[in-house]
Amino acid sequence: MKIDSVDFFYLAMPEVTTAADGSQDALVVRVTAGGHVGWGECEAAPLPSIAAFVCPMSHGACRPVADSVLGQTLDGPEDIKRMAAVVAYNSMDLLQAAHTWSGIEMALWDLLGHVRGEPTWKLLGYDKAYPKTPYASVLFGTTAQETLARAKEMRGLGFKAAKFGWAPFGDSLEGDIAHLDAAREGLGADGILLIDAGQIFGEDVDAAALRLDAMERNRVTFFEEPFHGSAYLAYGELSKRTKTVKTAGGEAAHNRHMAEHLIDFGGVGYIQIDCGRIGGLWPAKEVADYAVKRGVTYINHTFTSNLALSASLQPFAGLRDHTICEYPTTLQQLARDITLNHITPNANGEIIIPDAPGLGIQINPKALTQYAVDIEIKVAGKTVFSTPTY
Amino acid sequence: MKIDSVDFFYLAMPEVTTAADGSQDALVVRVTAGGHVGWGECEAAPLPSIAAFVCPMSHGACRPVADSVLGQTLDGPEDIKRMAAVVAYNSMDLLQAAHTWSGIEMALWDLLGHVRGEPTWKLLGYDKAYPKTPYASVLFGTTAQETLARAKEMRGLGFKAAKFGWAPFGDSLEGDIAHLDAAREGLGADGILLIDAGQIFGEDVDAAALRLDAMERNRVTFFEEPFHGSAYLAYGELSKRTKTVKTAGGEAAHNRHMAEHLIDFGGVGYIQIDCGRIGGLWPAKEVADYAVKRGVTYINHTFTSNLALSASLQPFAGLRDHTICEYPTTLQQLARDITLNHITPNANGEIIIPDAPGLGIQINPKALTQYAVDIEIKVAGKTVFSTPTY
Repeated sequence: MKIDSVDFFYLAMPEVTTAADGSQDALVVRVTAGGHVGWGECEAAPLPSIAAFVCPMSHGACRPVADSVLGQTLDGPEDIKRMAAVVAYNSMDLLQAAHTWSGIEMALWDLLGHVRGEPTWKLLGYDKAYPKTPYASVLFGTTAQETLARAKEMRGLGFKAAKFGWAPFGDSLEGDIAHLDAAREGLGADGILLIDAGQIFGEDVDAAALRLDAMERNRVTFFEEPFHGSAYLAYGELSKRTKTVKTAGGEAAHNRHMAEHLIDFGGVGYIQIDCGRIGGLWPAKEVADYAVKRGVTYINHTFTSNLALSASLQPFAGLRDHTICEYPTTLQQLARDITLNHITPNANGEIIIPDAPGLGIQINPKALTQYAVDIEIKVAGKTVFSTPTY
Repeated sequence: MKIDSVDFFYLAMPEVTTAADGSQDALVVRVTAGGHVGWGECEAAPLPSIAAFVCPMSHGACRPVADSVLGQTLDGPEDIKRMAAVVAYNSMDLLQAAHTWSGIEMALWDLLGHVRGEPTWKLLGYDKAYPKTPYASVLFGTTAQETLARAKEMRGLGFKAAKFGWAPFGDSLEGDIAHLDAAREGLGADGILLIDAGQIFGEDVDAAALRLDAMERNRVTFFEEPFHGSAYLAYGELSKRTKTVKTAGGEAAHNRHMAEHLIDFGGVGYIQIDCGRIGGLWPAKEVADYAVKRGVTYINHTFTSNLALSASLQPFAGLRDHTICEYPTTLQQLARDITLNHITPNANGEIIIPDAPGLGIQINPKALTQYAVDIEIKVAGKTVFSTPTY
């Protein structure tokens, strides 16, 4: 079959704040081919990502993503991999292309899964999908008291693991220690405690290292994104200074190489991949294979809808020993409403990866209208993009 | 003073082809502050780069570049560096932001140079600007005969050095050897011969290595971009297999770290920086400092207007021993017309870096109108971008 259409639905909450909450807007992608439909989601700024699909060509190595996708053949996984290589080459100078392609690639796997009646993780090469232990992904409270309350709340909801992230972490050493102690106290002695610094230390290894004692005392499992996503040497330095806590990172990787370098040069113990940025599911699966070889644990990165959540679980579905997964618990209503069905922990507090065809997620048409951000892009008087209808 | 405005001029030739010729369009940036004007240029896809400036915020770590620039204080170099850090942090999830910011950063240095009556290289910390030996940057001919003729032509124009690049290089080993022999023959025994593979080998080290014998026999000085810009390990492998030829790369770096990693892990002998992509002049200057420390040679990457050319020369203006510079010779008329003055080799065939204030380049207002691509972007019924007037 041929790829007939690619549509982008830019959705947003009525108000978007400066909170580090990626569920305030969404860029959902619909692909059609041979009468079949697949859905994906870019974890990316919507308007620039749309522009990267529809923009005029600048030259042979800076072509819009559309040129490498529309009209292409899609009969099996090899076609998706082939197209990925073409996008990478023909759009090598178009930086945003990786984010745009990520949502399309995801939709192609979903579509192919529907055609074959198989879950995506099977198409990726796994025989079986193992349950994951979700960690509740939440932001730190404004005060340590709030963090304590939030940790207790997550524990009360049945989560065995929780990740606390972003501001005010990094503001002061004393404050950070208070938040770490509060998180451990609220989560209980046997909870899995994870910390996300949101790149706050730039590349200041000493500043990040000052937090290690309190982390190890509180048995933090991983210390995520202390630094700028490309600062591998800073990661490498910090990784050498830890005793029990592991460093983690990778969400900024927009190709497979970047994630592999963070493993090899940054010494991370956990590699966190956002399928909505790295170029979709296949490069993520390649990173998962690489992590296994290097003795590193793969984890999904996701903070948007359950469509993106399902996609994020596929690349390591078959890795039995890579057990924990990110599970955002404080999503905006928009992110909940995008899908008709939802992935929720079972009675054992585990996440079962869908075994329905494709990504196993049904899109809610109403949400695509209700939250739509109306966009029109004109180039030389011609409309190259306008908000699609469902 | 405060930054009052940032305007983007998207210019293009009437026809844009798939040739690897980055001078077919341009994204010129004008910044005003305190009644002064500065000009820069993004080496980037224009529409997505504009979108990254004007898009709505997605969340606190995915803000439009405008939010970190407009209204900000600009009194000295430290303000530019401060703003760069703010952009990197507040737009960490907006991939295209680095390309957008690059042209703005360049314009800020130009503006500051005008205010202080000093060339930009002085503001970057150099006492003196040394002449550079330009290499003519041209594409391979379709046949070896054409490459021979092109090499002779460049030699006839007085160039002591020439770089041949892109297709059909990589199509076949025999063909590549014929092109290499032809380029050397046309350039003469004492010419400096450089080769740019345009990432054609992906990450296939063996395929690239098959060309090394013919390169060393033809005394090629550097072998540029054999691989994907992030494939540091492939670069590292190839670098180990060379005898006299050095590997070169770096144009895809969109932050300082990426260039430094290509030096440390890729083992390149020449680091090529495009100021229109890496975040402007300051990160490029930091890479130049790093290259000096590591015994690596810094070179500009540029294939657009003389505004971008001047900008590209500033970060290594004061490095006496880093003598060769890229000098595009087959620019489209658009790229010539953007500036009123031009940088041309002197009687010795050398490039003298401008010592007029700022980047020392005057913009041609007529070109901004003549080549303008009319753009309109509407979000929720409100126009967030329309083509500015000069």
